[in-house]
Amino acid sequence: MCESNAFLRDGDEERLVMEDVSFVEPVEGGYRLRGLFGEETVVRGRLEEINLLKHKILFTGE
Amino acid sequence: MCESNAFLRDGDEERLVMEDVSFVEPVEGGYRLRGLFGEETVVRGRLEEINLLKHKILFTGE
Repeated sequence: MCESNAFLRDGDEERLVMEDVSFVEPVEGGYRLRGLFGEETVVRGRLEEINLLKHKILFTGE
Repeated sequence: MCESNAFLRDGDEERLVMEDVSFVEPVEGGYRLRGLFGEETVVRGRLEEINLLKHKILFTGE
């Protein structure tokens, strides 16, 4: 399984937003994340990095 | 292996930019892609979608 976990940077901290994200698309002011079972959430902010070796997608609100 | 292939939309066509991308970060006007062996390229455009089930990252220059 190649899903990634999505995190939102909050200062020095990285807060887990959603596990096992399979799909990401930009929406107004942020990104819509979709999980393996169709669950969705929207993260407000910019994309900071995608690290597929670490299964990690990092956003930042700053 | 969970790397994804990066494509750039050009009208109705999707052109392969880099295979086995492991790392993506935004740069001025686009995104820097890094492959499994450290090779790098910059794609000019916006992120359109990340589909980890399809191992696909799609950018668009439009």
